[in-house]
Amino acid sequence: MSSLAAELEAAAQIGADGGGVSRFAWSPELAQANEWLIRRLEELSLEAELDPAGNVFGRWAVGEGSAVLVGSHLDTVPRGGRYDGALGVLAALATVRVLRAEGVEPKRPLWVVSFNDEEGSRFQTGMLGSRAFCGEVDLEDWRRRGVADAMARAGVDFDQLTSARAVDGVGAYLELHIEQGPVLEQSGEDLGIVTAITGLLGFRVKLLGAANHAGTTPMDGRRDALAGASRIVLELREEARAREDMTANVGIVSVEPGGFNVIPGLAEFTIDVRSPTAEGFERAEAFVRETVKRVAAEEGLGMEMSATHRKPPVALDQGLQDALVGAAEAEGASYRLMPSGAGHDAMVLAHHVPAAMLFVPSRGGISHSPDEYTPPEQCELGARVLARAVRGLVG
Amino acid sequence: MSSLAAELEAAAQIGADGGGVSRFAWSPELAQANEWLIRRLEELSLEAELDPAGNVFGRWAVGEGSAVLVGSHLDTVPRGGRYDGALGVLAALATVRVLRAEGVEPKRPLWVVSFNDEEGSRFQTGMLGSRAFCGEVDLEDWRRRGVADAMARAGVDFDQLTSARAVDGVGAYLELHIEQGPVLEQSGEDLGIVTAITGLLGFRVKLLGAANHAGTTPMDGRRDALAGASRIVLELREEARAREDMTANVGIVSVEPGGFNVIPGLAEFTIDVRSPTAEGFERAEAFVRETVKRVAAEEGLGMEMSATHRKPPVALDQGLQDALVGAAEAEGASYRLMPSGAGHDAMVLAHHVPAAMLFVPSRGGISHSPDEYTPPEQCELGARVLARAVRGLVG
Repeated sequence: MSSLAAELEAAAQIGADGGGVSRFAWSPELAQANEWLIRRLEELSLEAELDPAGNVFGRWAVGEGSAVLVGSHLDTVPRGGRYDGALGVLAALATVRVLRAEGVEPKRPLWVVSFNDEEGSRFQTGMLGSRAFCGEVDLEDWRRRGVADAMARAGVDFDQLTSARAVDGVGAYLELHIEQGPVLEQSGEDLGIVTAITGLLGFRVKLLGAANHAGTTPMDGRRDALAGASRIVLELREEARAREDMTANVGIVSVEPGGFNVIPGLAEFTIDVRSPTAEGFERAEAFVRETVKRVAAEEGLGMEMSATHRKPPVALDQGLQDALVGAAEAEGASYRLMPSGAGHDAMVLAHHVPAAMLFVPSRGGISHSPDEYTPPEQCELGARVLARAVRGLVG
Repeated sequence: MSSLAAELEAAAQIGADGGGVSRFAWSPELAQANEWLIRRLEELSLEAELDPAGNVFGRWAVGEGSAVLVGSHLDTVPRGGRYDGALGVLAALATVRVLRAEGVEPKRPLWVVSFNDEEGSRFQTGMLGSRAFCGEVDLEDWRRRGVADAMARAGVDFDQLTSARAVDGVGAYLELHIEQGPVLEQSGEDLGIVTAITGLLGFRVKLLGAANHAGTTPMDGRRDALAGASRIVLELREEARAREDMTANVGIVSVEPGGFNVIPGLAEFTIDVRSPTAEGFERAEAFVRETVKRVAAEEGLGMEMSATHRKPPVALDQGLQDALVGAAEAEGASYRLMPSGAGHDAMVLAHHVPAAMLFVPSRGGISHSPDEYTPPEQCELGARVLARAVRGLVG
């Protein structure tokens, strides 16, 4: 077994949970994983640090100028897989190991990172660690969600989150990650070189109708909130199918009063819409707002809609994409340029420094599941391309 | 205040619950209402009886031949209204009071009834009292639902339910009820004379898709269970709107796993379909089965569908309808012939004896709610027409 495969196996034992892995921000399981990582970093003679936001760094303090930062995250969703995040952290470790073995003396600092709370599983925060690292703190929001209490119980100081900002020393960020989708598996390509990280829009919608008797109310006198929601589900899908640059999902829905023979008087649901281009993002946002309003009006329903999140798409750095393309070709790996449909720490970093991402295939497109899997040879190839690109950047 | 209005007021105090009324089968509240009714029956010199199924009878044992049975039910849905059921029982009392006052000597027996457990609120039984009265017992099903235990706690013998059959002594059944829909209020007519009680069909449906990531799964690679459910909701509505003789409702829906950014891999929902004609009932049933199967196949979804209930429509007796028409005209009441979209005890009785129903308007079509309301003068008019029709039948 390669050292990367062995380390993936070792990391997956920490927080092992019913075939999957559960490691949440400021939990004992993530603390244990961080300690494990710090030992690995120190074995490679890196300067290890757990920063005030719970991010783990391993610094090869060498050369001059801004650092090349390489990594991902070790936290997970509940019963998540063993690759999401961990692969990128362990590939960064492997990169340092390769460079040490080859006797490379970097001309600039090289840092390994494991960002805290990328998944936001406990408090629906998401990318808290990388945001704090980039100085994007929202103490009030995080306190309201319970982060301060959790940090206090873990013995760390919530107010120190503001002192975690250290992005200014970084000149480039690279992250290897599993695709979490089926595109590479279906195309048969080895790697995805990420052009942009999709913009994320979230909405909560309430439609208000009238909860009347399903047998005695004439069909043309109904104000059926679920019928309105159903139209919106299908119109969003139709629009997204007709466009290259948009996805749409209604993942949560509930109706009240919820009786077999009662017309739904209230339907509540979420809308998740994404686009990797600025223009597509604006169009998708306008389409959602117009569609919900129009359908509610046509159905005679009251309507409340609130945006839960709005993260415009981020184009990744062209120079770093070119470096990854060159490294892939040198390693004989096939690849495609593709957007990322999921959010990542690179999305936060890209607003501050040149950033890039490299994908390896996900079997069946499955992620956030114990069934998440990428074959060892595909993980290895991704790590080799990452190491080669980093060698070029620090050489 | 008329005696009918006073008695509606008095009955509504028994089991009063947050502006509404809660009286369930074999509960202390319904027992108290039954005792109250028995006192009223005895005041009118009727032979009062609580039968083995919890039905209350008041028998005017007079004349010869089969009895005319008049009544409804005193049980309610949770926090139900004060008219649903109670109005028909109290109008039957008022009918006897009128005949006594007029010195009418019936040529055949006249019985007042309050059937037990019409709503089936506790055990999802429904019309248990009238079914037992008609000999339609299903001891095994009722025991499984908890009826036997509840009866034991109330000190009555479950096995005696089979001895409640007494429909054979009845020659006609008449029931006054609120419409529970908006038709009469909107048309401005005083009364509805019911032609048929709608057939009821119920289904539970599960659609099985794939719970993938909402951002990374291409739109054309999704198997979205909620999209399938949405199509079915809308196709059922379209069919029901296009036909005179069908209603359709999806009143309960849930999806799993229920994540903002996860495509619904499972959707479960109910379908309630009704038709007042035998031909419409068959067509509606076929339409539901065909639509669910076709949509599931087109969407690439697995499908499980089970029928929860199937009660074909029942035409009410023409001779009794004619008697109600004559009585309405004699009282100067406007009326329309209409089907009932809700189930009633008359539906059970109609399989055994000639049965008929009379509706009074429901304000706003509202029922099963504390807001249920029918103005006193409309209740009175309904009761007068009922009394006149009964007088004709027993005279």
